[in-house]
Amino acid sequence: MKRRIITLTTDFGTKDGYVGAVKGVIKRINSDVEIVDITHEIEPFDILGAAFVLNNFYKFLPPETIHLVVVDPGVGGKRQPLLIKSEDFYFVGPDNGVFSFLYENEQITEMIVLTNKKYFLTKVSSTFNARDVFAPVSAYLSLGLDVKEFGNDAKGCLKLKVPQVKLTKKSLMGEIIHIDSFGNLITNVETKVLESKTITRIAVGKNKIKRIAQSYFDIPEGKVGAVVGSSGFLEIAMNKGNAQKVTTGIIGNSVTVTFK
Amino acid sequence: MKRRIITLTTDFGTKDGYVGAVKGVIKRINSDVEIVDITHEIEPFDILGAAFVLNNFYKFLPPETIHLVVVDPGVGGKRQPLLIKSEDFYFVGPDNGVFSFLYENEQITEMIVLTNKKYFLTKVSSTFNARDVFAPVSAYLSLGLDVKEFGNDAKGCLKLKVPQVKLTKKSLMGEIIHIDSFGNLITNVETKVLESKTITRIAVGKNKIKRIAQSYFDIPEGKVGAVVGSSGFLEIAMNKGNAQKVTTGIIGNSVTVTFK
Amino acid sequence: MKRRIITLTTDFGTKDGYVGAVKGVIKRINSDVEIVDITHEIEPFDILGAAFVLNNFYKFLPPETIHLVVVDPGVGGKRQPLLIKSEDFYFVGPDNGVFSFLYENEQITEMIVLTNKKYFLTKVSSTFNARDVFAPVSAYLSLGLDVKEFGNDAKGCLKLKVPQVKLTKKSLMGEIIHIDSFGNLITNVETKVLESKTITRIAVGKNKIKRIAQSYFDIPEGKVGAVVGSSGFLEIAMNKGNAQKVTTGIIGNSVTVTFK
Repeated sequence: MKRRIITLTTDFGTKDGYVGAVKGVIKRINSDVEIVDITHEIEPFDILGAAFVLNNFYKFLPPETIHLVVVDPGVGGKRQPLLIKSEDFYFVGPDNGVFSFLYENEQITEMIVLTNKKYFLTKVSSTFNARDVFAPVSAYLSLGLDVKEFGNDAKGCLKLKVPQVKLTKKSLMGEIIHIDSFGNLITNVETKVLESKTITRIAVGKNKIKRIAQSYFDIPEGKVGAVVGSSGFLEIAMNKGNAQKVTTGIIGNSVTVTFK
Repeated sequence: MKRRIITLTTDFGTKDGYVGAVKGVIKRINSDVEIVDITHEIEPFDILGAAFVLNNFYKFLPPETIHLVVVDPGVGGKRQPLLIKSEDFYFVGPDNGVFSFLYENEQITEMIVLTNKKYFLTKVSSTFNARDVFAPVSAYLSLGLDVKEFGNDAKGCLKLKVPQVKLTKKSLMGEIIHIDSFGNLITNVETKVLESKTITRIAVGKNKIKRIAQSYFDIPEGKVGAVVGSSGFLEIAMNKGNAQKVTTGIIGNSVTVTFK
Repeated sequence: MKRRIITLTTDFGTKDGYVGAVKGVIKRINSDVEIVDITHEIEPFDILGAAFVLNNFYKFLPPETIHLVVVDPGVGGKRQPLLIKSEDFYFVGPDNGVFSFLYENEQITEMIVLTNKKYFLTKVSSTFNARDVFAPVSAYLSLGLDVKEFGNDAKGCLKLKVPQVKLTKKSLMGEIIHIDSFGNLITNVETKVLESKTITRIAVGKNKIKRIAQSYFDIPEGKVGAVVGSSGFLEIAMNKGNAQKVTTGIIGNSVTVTFK
């Protein structure tokens, strides 16, 4: 039998031992499960950022993988603890919008509010549900328990408003939704929409870009350019440079593509 | 048989490949052992910080786990290389205080000075004992060797003075002992001591807090508050904010709880 | 049978989920392979830095380990995707110099340009070959496929010029080639060359050092000193301090050792 995988995506950093506690709780319950660190460096409390990052990687993991995502400023409050099952994956985390991108991309088959305390740590703190609730639930789930075992059907869940593009005959206006560690400005403009168009200009702040380059390397050195990013979104980037620093672009800034 | 686990806690960062060498040495000796990264981001040379972080996570791991902790400014000097066995766990690292919290919380059954060079790398450098001594010892230990095989009984070991609280009839004075990556100020005040008290004020610097909140979320936004932290210590915190930045608190600053 | 290991060394950071996608692709192809994170914190686009770090750790891993190294500013351009086999290891990554140190230290037996698209993801992006080319190739390789299966013999490969030392009768002049996370300045001076010499001075910037200390701990506190680093290179360092901050040394600065 294949080893089950639990991926970890958090805003905890590693330096406080919090992630260590989460890993320990999981391993105590299922010593055979494989824990795969995705990141612990989500910007603190950046729910939409976590949702975006999850979208970048989750579908590449093997079927049956459990994705544990904890960016949880509302811990100890009234937000629901959730377990979501789609055709291929499981997702565990707080119902605060971290799963916002799933509803468009995954066929969701079950959505459960975690209420069965049998699968929590004996003493649940009000500040660290990742350790006390989400980790043990993920671990028991990896042992093969049915999702219905963990609680009742959720009546609904929070979907954050993912910024939408505006398309007219002569232009498409989107915005920067993520800045990656290279300083690439990732927009919400799906490049497949642009395939049939003849682009005349891409504008971001004061920067005007004439065309989409074939690759980072294809952008003239020292210039701000655009590429088709690895998840299919238009990306403002530089060749061996940091587009964020040069453009001073931030999340929410508009990006306008003009065409004939 | 269950796979044994070795956890890694260091101040090495990852960017130089030092941790990679440590992992390689372990895997060469026991390819079956599971290495669990806790953190490599301990502040350089921060021994007490490492001791505190170890305390946050070690007991959540499965029994028989080997905790390798290397923050080792005295490497190549006279500090003893140690192997400690408690009822449930093994600890390997330098005798410089990184294990200071264990003596209160764990039943220690063996304490060995690592002297048996048979279990070191052939050539031991004076700058990288983690790779040359602690990693191979941990790996051989994970193969099931008896602790006595690695050296002789230690005559004693270094316990750093962990700051103590001062309790009077009307107040309890503690101090900040750790600042986590969210900027939460973690104190040495065990909140169970406060359970029977009616708190009138918590003071940290110029900030006066009226009560312990139920959770981070329960703290009014924009205000500095206090919660029971996930390890049972009083924590100065904010709701979706960074208490360190707002209070400018640092490790060693006093925190006073006043009660009726 | 022992589990095969794939190590990961990149400049991706973890916060964008890119590494998560790489890990997922690998696990989908070979669920049994063990992924060992070395680092994702190489300075963006720092090819020589990655080459140096690889040299610090690769030989400590078990034989048959696959080292996946991706610092790839030329992705989508004409640089070759490479698979190198040495007596003990496999290396996968772009042909841009990240493997520069191997040619001196490893007996290379095969060098293959990755051309067989059967082992790539179906749709190869021009911005993320780590996910689309290098990860699946590494994973298929870990299943035991012959290296010749992945493409044709490379006609050559790029070797970056590794800075060389200048040795005269009375001095040896080298330079700083890496600065580690402790601020230690690592030079290209192999200390075995110095063993037969009586050193009178080591000069780096305005700092004059009289002798090589036995260990970091052996350097007088507050002073800049020198030690034999863990990979055998002369290192400018401090005792519990940051030599980079104090000397303001940067990569490329010269270091001169004078002897009788």
